[in-house]
Amino acid sequence: MFLSQLEKSNTLDIRSEPGNAGKDRCFMYSFKNDYSEGAHPLILDALLENNRSQQQGYGDDEYSVRAGELIRTKLGNPHSAVHLVSGGTQANLVMISSTLRPHESVISAVSGHIDRHETGAIEATGHRIETISTHDGKLSPELIADFLLQVEEVHMCRPRMVYISNSTELGTHYMKDELLALRAYCKENDLYLYMDGARLASGLDAGDITFADLGRYTDAFYIGGTKNGALLGEAIVINNPALQEYFSYNLKMRGALLAKGRLLGIQFATLFTGDLYFEIGAHMNRTAAMLTAAFAQLGYSFLTPSKTNQIFPILPEKVIDGLRKNYDFYTWQKTDRHHAAIRLVTSWATEEAVIQLFIEDLDRLTKR
Amino acid sequence: MFLSQLEKSNTLDIRSEPGNAGKDRCFMYSFKNDYSEGAHPLILDALLENNRSQQQGYGDDEYSVRAGELIRTKLGNPHSAVHLVSGGTQANLVMISSTLRPHESVISAVSGHIDRHETGAIEATGHRIETISTHDGKLSPELIADFLLQVEEVHMCRPRMVYISNSTELGTHYMKDELLALRAYCKENDLYLYMDGARLASGLDAGDITFADLGRYTDAFYIGGTKNGALLGEAIVINNPALQEYFSYNLKMRGALLAKGRLLGIQFATLFTGDLYFEIGAHMNRTAAMLTAAFAQLGYSFLTPSKTNQIFPILPEKVIDGLRKNYDFYTWQKTDRHHAAIRLVTSWATEEAVIQLFIEDLDRLTKR
Amino acid sequence: MFLSQLEKSNTLDIRSEPGNAGKDRCFMYSFKNDYSEGAHPLILDALLENNRSQQQGYGDDEYSVRAGELIRTKLGNPHSAVHLVSGGTQANLVMISSTLRPHESVISAVSGHIDRHETGAIEATGHRIETISTHDGKLSPELIADFLLQVEEVHMCRPRMVYISNSTELGTHYMKDELLALRAYCKENDLYLYMDGARLASGLDAGDITFADLGRYTDAFYIGGTKNGALLGEAIVINNPALQEYFSYNLKMRGALLAKGRLLGIQFATLFTGDLYFEIGAHMNRTAAMLTAAFAQLGYSFLTPSKTNQIFPILPEKVIDGLRKNYDFYTWQKTDRHHAAIRLVTSWATEEAVIQLFIEDLDRLTKR
Amino acid sequence: MFLSQLEKSNTLDIRSEPGNAGKDRCFMYSFKNDYSEGAHPLILDALLENNRSQQQGYGDDEYSVRAGELIRTKLGNPHSAVHLVSGGTQANLVMISSTLRPHESVISAVSGHIDRHETGAIEATGHRIETISTHDGKLSPELIADFLLQVEEVHMCRPRMVYISNSTELGTHYMKDELLALRAYCKENDLYLYMDGARLASGLDAGDITFADLGRYTDAFYIGGTKNGALLGEAIVINNPALQEYFSYNLKMRGALLAKGRLLGIQFATLFTGDLYFEIGAHMNRTAAMLTAAFAQLGYSFLTPSKTNQIFPILPEKVIDGLRKNYDFYTWQKTDRHHAAIRLVTSWATEEAVIQLFIEDLDRLTKR
Repeated sequence: MFLSQLEKSNTLDIRSEPGNAGKDRCFMYSFKNDYSEGAHPLILDALLENNRSQQQGYGDDEYSVRAGELIRTKLGNPHSAVHLVSGGTQANLVMISSTLRPHESVISAVSGHIDRHETGAIEATGHRIETISTHDGKLSPELIADFLLQVEEVHMCRPRMVYISNSTELGTHYMKDELLALRAYCKENDLYLYMDGARLASGLDAGDITFADLGRYTDAFYIGGTKNGALLGEAIVINNPALQEYFSYNLKMRGALLAKGRLLGIQFATLFTGDLYFEIGAHMNRTAAMLTAAFAQLGYSFLTPSKTNQIFPILPEKVIDGLRKNYDFYTWQKTDRHHAAIRLVTSWATEEAVIQLFIEDLDRLTKR
Repeated sequence: MFLSQLEKSNTLDIRSEPGNAGKDRCFMYSFKNDYSEGAHPLILDALLENNRSQQQGYGDDEYSVRAGELIRTKLGNPHSAVHLVSGGTQANLVMISSTLRPHESVISAVSGHIDRHETGAIEATGHRIETISTHDGKLSPELIADFLLQVEEVHMCRPRMVYISNSTELGTHYMKDELLALRAYCKENDLYLYMDGARLASGLDAGDITFADLGRYTDAFYIGGTKNGALLGEAIVINNPALQEYFSYNLKMRGALLAKGRLLGIQFATLFTGDLYFEIGAHMNRTAAMLTAAFAQLGYSFLTPSKTNQIFPILPEKVIDGLRKNYDFYTWQKTDRHHAAIRLVTSWATEEAVIQLFIEDLDRLTKR
Repeated sequence: MFLSQLEKSNTLDIRSEPGNAGKDRCFMYSFKNDYSEGAHPLILDALLENNRSQQQGYGDDEYSVRAGELIRTKLGNPHSAVHLVSGGTQANLVMISSTLRPHESVISAVSGHIDRHETGAIEATGHRIETISTHDGKLSPELIADFLLQVEEVHMCRPRMVYISNSTELGTHYMKDELLALRAYCKENDLYLYMDGARLASGLDAGDITFADLGRYTDAFYIGGTKNGALLGEAIVINNPALQEYFSYNLKMRGALLAKGRLLGIQFATLFTGDLYFEIGAHMNRTAAMLTAAFAQLGYSFLTPSKTNQIFPILPEKVIDGLRKNYDFYTWQKTDRHHAAIRLVTSWATEEAVIQLFIEDLDRLTKR
Repeated sequence: MFLSQLEKSNTLDIRSEPGNAGKDRCFMYSFKNDYSEGAHPLILDALLENNRSQQQGYGDDEYSVRAGELIRTKLGNPHSAVHLVSGGTQANLVMISSTLRPHESVISAVSGHIDRHETGAIEATGHRIETISTHDGKLSPELIADFLLQVEEVHMCRPRMVYISNSTELGTHYMKDELLALRAYCKENDLYLYMDGARLASGLDAGDITFADLGRYTDAFYIGGTKNGALLGEAIVINNPALQEYFSYNLKMRGALLAKGRLLGIQFATLFTGDLYFEIGAHMNRTAAMLTAAFAQLGYSFLTPSKTNQIFPILPEKVIDGLRKNYDFYTWQKTDRHHAAIRLVTSWATEEAVIQLFIEDLDRLTKR
């Protein structure tokens, strides 16, 4: 079986059988998510190496301290506060609820993760999400300004934070001029700018925003680990000093402060030693781009123009059915009677050999 | 250095130098917590072995499913629901907030972790904690009945759940007759019985309650992993079917549903394969008992009578100061002008050789 | 001055000067709201008459008890629970938050008061509002079914309640067949049906739903007093026994249980002695209909087809400017470059004489 | 019947029959509460007089504006913000929840109303109440300092506000030196000082604190109307500018902003025209003092030393049983086998004639 071979190997090599293209293959490979596999081998190495050292609890371990320093150095912002937590919904709910006063709300695209897929996590902390429709999952000053025109005093919440995802839930990403425009608009309008970086490495790799830009042009953001090669974990980075104070209390209060913070510290220290974090993002985008090129060459169009690790090609149902025999993925939405957009996601563990197999199968199914 | 030696070794052996007793030793060992080290080696082995398998997200991976089955089998209750989360505060806040209706409160000992050390996590979900003073951290039907006498309708919350910890925050543990009495009282009085098992293996090992008893005599409890050899993680077990429905929604809403649930699944599947979970508890209690015996032999008394992995000996300040040169621990409370109770905690990684060194030092400091 | 004359009179007569039409009048009359004046004289009489009687607190006074009985009798449902509170946002937030479990959400039209004009009151209790776009402020099984198709398990809230307003925020009202269809759909889909009756008397008078229908076909609703002649107050009616238990605890917890509940009791007992409550609704609709007829006769169209006490005629800006000299009202929305819809609201205190003055002015301004 | 005579009279006279002392009387008078009757006649007069004037909604009516000005003038603090709400629990929950950040808690005496009798209203907004035991319901810098010694960082909430009641729930009151000491301590320790003035007029009348002192030495307080002659209503006064901003949003969000704010405005404008508010407090204390003197003269002792309108005499059960035939009141607590403390409360409507009847009956029952 294909996967058990992968498991045995401790490298990124894949023993594919390209000569078998066209015949039935007996394996199943998942493009459903970038969190289908475990952790990058360098992370596991670090966990093993440090396993028996005795450490302080609750984020005061030396690894978490070091991870914070590495991240601040890469940001070029010595005053940013770094807090490590176990998941993205947790990062969002603690960051948003600790920032907003009770009557304040957060602005998000309709497609924003906090509004679509977090089971009312923000509302459960008492805050309203104000949603704005977009065609590509991205907010802009114009869209926000239109929304704010309708807001009445006292009888409606006071919007106080703008939530953006980079990359977005639709595979798109922000460019630096877009970030700068949002930043300027937010400053003028007394809005905090917060970036959900569940897929940050992929989002940055796709565009021209640098990691250091995030330390300058957002009030806070989080660095996604779960979807970028960690066992779990996200690093919340708070640049705005006004939002830093007492943040640890809020982490504890929401159940987000791990006793064994070392697990998060070791991972983020590994990811930010050298450029591992960003290399993983580049790897994911590169493998996704191989798929995109193949779809485009065969004449397929896409739901959104994505240069990140999530792509949404539109395919005939027959091709989709054919692909399902060996590949797992989500059908995203019907586009007409006989076509649908599917979502394919690459991960830190996606091998080029698998991409080649997929492309061969796609080619064969298209031309059948 | 002592610890680096420990780290290099991949076994539980310790290269101690007992002949050096009486001289200055150049090491520092921490008895502060049972979460100072990483994970039990068998857990790391399992993580490595399964790292590249592709799994469903959000707790639907095969390891989490297997962990649930192993736990249900050991409980002898095929209808118990098992949910894996990353920490104890999280387990408590999701379990309590998903159970109570808005006007309902939870009863806890004053020393209960939810009241003392969770930064208002329960209140942050909108619920009041009703506290009862105890001498040993344990609740009883008599104590609860006294409290309930003072509760007025409508103008006070309706108490609906009893929260107990086993072992308790003071190192004590419940016996089976005590659990049965609480169970009967709760049933009669329309109260749910919930056990915080952050240190469950230690608590069970110290007394006569079996793991299967927990499936019969509580509405819900959680199995602590963080303090029992896991990298992180707790397994919430819900026995009462009325509390099971829609629990996953609440996990997600509180940021407690991990995308890579496999990390928790692999760990709990390992801990509940054979008796590893309980062996770790027994190891912790055995090493703590060695310390207890040594203190008793030297004539010291204790703050509470503990058979678990947390002990609270009362020592002269001079002895405490002496111990601090090589050992880290909490001073718990002053007991008179020249004495204080300290807290010593053993862990899955505590070596008997370290215990011997400690006892030698204690002996020497006492007799100086 | 016009208004001081109104105040002196203790009847509904108005000493108008119709002969003055065409000349400048020196008065200002407000059609902004149905809560601009104090209370219906019969309510004040009752307050005076009972002022010195000593009563139990917190809703156990004899007037509140009597109000409950009168309402139940008119409903024909002896098992409905009646609770009196001071305002509509309060009624909504207590009813919704006491009904929903933490992970559950409420469905509302985009125009619904809970979503548009209650400053996140529902979210502040931890619950999400799911919104559906409508053209007339009314929900239907079809609209709800379309929405429910997009709801995913676990990762989205579980919708559990449908919130409708009657009359709606856009002046429209439900007919009996619409209510029955919603009721049937909700039952099939495990949804509670809750009606916001801030303007209930007006809504019922406009259509064919009887008051008794509300006791049969909703799980809960509230009877608006503030906008129907009371000094303040709304009567929450809970028909579904499952939602009745412990409701008083929730009232107290949300600050909605008045010590001097007698103030609410006396008012609702007065409104539901005979048909006063409904007569006030009919009066408001009748005076509004006089305005509607006048607008229609002059060829004006309307934003929504309203038979209730809120109407939305579309006027040229010149006419709007002219009306503003003697009348206060909201401009609701621009409809094109030179036209806007205004909102006119009649109240229990609106005199036909004022309506006549307004119509004369409208006529004059239109024909100028 | 006694009470119907009271009702007919529009004065404070009472047609008692003192000659009948010793015989059975056929009336029942309640000393249970200070909210058993309706409103002071001057308030009803004002409501009648202004009933038909048209006013802005949501607290922008001219009466609410005038009430704010009158209160600010009496306070001598032109910068205090005044907000009128319908009840005390509501005042407390909005004030506390809008002030505290999520991880912050409020300190109260164990006997404090927010902790004892508000059904978890503060916790329902997400905040923890830290309680301190007292013998008389009053907090002091010493008691608070002792408590703060036990507070740990991060793992416990950060106490940020001190809640005191004046008069207290036990009938005691603060003196100016006590208030100044609390004020100084709170300033030094970054704590807000908030006074619950449900029975403020009685509390001030009993001691040497002036109304203007409250504008200088508290961050916020509320002026109780419900228990001081109003139909309902409390006036929240916020002196600290940092706590004023956006308060109206929080009122609306918690369902505390009345559409017909005029009802509250007219009442507080009446209470603060001249000294009516304080005269009512003085009347209540004077009638209570007559009772206190009578008890003392007969040799009875008291649970607490009260100069306010709540007194707690300790009586033999036989006397209590005898009094119950014509008087209603709470038995507060058993003090020994044959004695209990009862609570007697006087109100704005308590007639001296009734006090005389009570004293006659007490005398007779004592000497029987």
